[in-house]
Amino acid sequence: MLDEKILSILRNNTDSYVSGEELCKTAGISRAAIWKHIEKLRGEGYDIEALPHLGYRLVGIPDSLIASEIKWKLKTKVIGKNIMSYKKVDSTNDVVYDLAENGIGEGAVAVSEEQTKGKGRHGRQWLSPPHGGVYFSCVLRPEIAPTEIAKITLLAAVAVARSIRDVTGASAMIKWPNDILVNDKKVCGILTEMKAEQDAVDFVVVGIGINVNTPLKYLPKGASSLIAEIGGRAGEEKLSRIEVVRNVLEKLEEEYLKLKKHGFKPIIEDWKHFSAMIGSRVKVTLPNRTFEGLVHNLDSSGELVIRRDTGVLEKISSGDVVIVKN
Amino acid sequence: MLDEKILSILRNNTDSYVSGEELCKTAGISRAAIWKHIEKLRGEGYDIEALPHLGYRLVGIPDSLIASEIKWKLKTKVIGKNIMSYKKVDSTNDVVYDLAENGIGEGAVAVSEEQTKGKGRHGRQWLSPPHGGVYFSCVLRPEIAPTEIAKITLLAAVAVARSIRDVTGASAMIKWPNDILVNDKKVCGILTEMKAEQDAVDFVVVGIGINVNTPLKYLPKGASSLIAEIGGRAGEEKLSRIEVVRNVLEKLEEEYLKLKKHGFKPIIEDWKHFSAMIGSRVKVTLPNRTFEGLVHNLDSSGELVIRRDTGVLEKISSGDVVIVKN
Repeated sequence: MLDEKILSILRNNTDSYVSGEELCKTAGISRAAIWKHIEKLRGEGYDIEALPHLGYRLVGIPDSLIASEIKWKLKTKVIGKNIMSYKKVDSTNDVVYDLAENGIGEGAVAVSEEQTKGKGRHGRQWLSPPHGGVYFSCVLRPEIAPTEIAKITLLAAVAVARSIRDVTGASAMIKWPNDILVNDKKVCGILTEMKAEQDAVDFVVVGIGINVNTPLKYLPKGASSLIAEIGGRAGEEKLSRIEVVRNVLEKLEEEYLKLKKHGFKPIIEDWKHFSAMIGSRVKVTLPNRTFEGLVHNLDSSGELVIRRDTGVLEKISSGDVVIVKN
Repeated sequence: MLDEKILSILRNNTDSYVSGEELCKTAGISRAAIWKHIEKLRGEGYDIEALPHLGYRLVGIPDSLIASEIKWKLKTKVIGKNIMSYKKVDSTNDVVYDLAENGIGEGAVAVSEEQTKGKGRHGRQWLSPPHGGVYFSCVLRPEIAPTEIAKITLLAAVAVARSIRDVTGASAMIKWPNDILVNDKKVCGILTEMKAEQDAVDFVVVGIGINVNTPLKYLPKGASSLIAEIGGRAGEEKLSRIEVVRNVLEKLEEEYLKLKKHGFKPIIEDWKHFSAMIGSRVKVTLPNRTFEGLVHNLDSSGELVIRRDTGVLEKISSGDVVIVKN
């Protein structure tokens, strides 16, 4: 708490020095104690300048996903008010799922620098190297039926696409149902999991992995990072990962409130706007068959409507859909 | 293991005595060791007669939900091959859900004499007193979409109705979606929970609570027990709870294999056959409205089709439906 108080004073005065005396008074502790807290913050990666007669000044914050950094200036009411940050976990989805089963409130977030068992759809792996990616999961407790779960994935996709556009200026697009592309390359995956009874969702965990500054050598083929796609060189230039996470949480809350207030319709419209698929020729792989067609629309329940070459419309709620280059 | 071996020999010879010598030979241990095992089994509630010069004879098995008793003669390939039995748990669904999250295989079952936090639909309580009920849950790992979860509840309802008819002869009926009635009184509830991603179920936990011998004073209004409904007096007469559990597990496997082999259609037909609702006048309570109508059908996805007085057909996948007496 005292660390955060001192940090907060320094944050509010980054263009001047805060005297030791002033820090003592505001924090209500001795000079020696102030010094100890400053050293602790430096240990966490905060760059704090200390000049005789002038005092202290915050000149740099660490490139770590520290909960208090994400919460700093986070403009949300629910999502991210409770953040747990980790150096390494199996899977942030699993961490949050367990917490949710034990009753943790809506909006709780776990964020990690690395996942050793990052999960993609259908038990696939989501590579989560500790080199500049962000991996986080959030619990939601919407009053919906399990049949409506697709809405939450699509909502999260809209939030992330919006956020990447906001932070980087890149034209992020959505590939149904759960990938975000920049320049046709995958930079983000979303995995939605739920606990539900027959007709009522207990909770949903939305997991989001974004390759922010990740060097391409750590990523699978077809994937890229935000920094690479906006023309930077990973390892030398960096986007603020804190800002990315904070911005996504804010957009997620915006879209979630939109769903609660206006239903799913405005989200579908946004989704279509960001879709990398509508009008594209795709190949659909279902468990028992494959076919090609043109993506015609996204229907009101979040199913992808595909017009086959025979003219028949098919609705797809699962399966793999890849864009076929002409 | 030795207990089970000795028990198995005695079980195969309930109309004669097995000499100590024979037991020693078959089990491969000494007379003194046999005696110790017999005493242990007696401690668990087995009634074993021991006569000089004649030997041992099994004359009674305990009225406890011992895993090895349920497994004895259980005619299933998957469901119940792995049974864990408890004196008391919070909720057998929670026990099995946790095991399933940690990877336990399909068909694992937890059974308990009592639940301190027995669960009904929508967070309601399911009273589970330690007085003659059976409470058990089973994990299934069907390859279905979460939208198909209703099928599993309906399948379980068919299995339980069939089983109660088989064991007691009573005309068990199904009240949509998850109750089993005998003489219009609730004797069993089913709670289906799942973990799923957007388009694939990870696992389903089917929880079943049956008031077998439970005295009515322990049950809520409108509920009854199997023994009471077939004219017995709970506390004095008893149905074999072991037999009830074993039979339900067998019927559950039969219906589950039917689903895998022939799809949902034969299960719907069976469901209709056992339905206490089709043709009945009902009152439907949804989160935002209520209405009355006649139950017209169960559709191919497990939704209840109700004809309102205006003639309009409505499909119901959730909500509370109660039969209105004319």
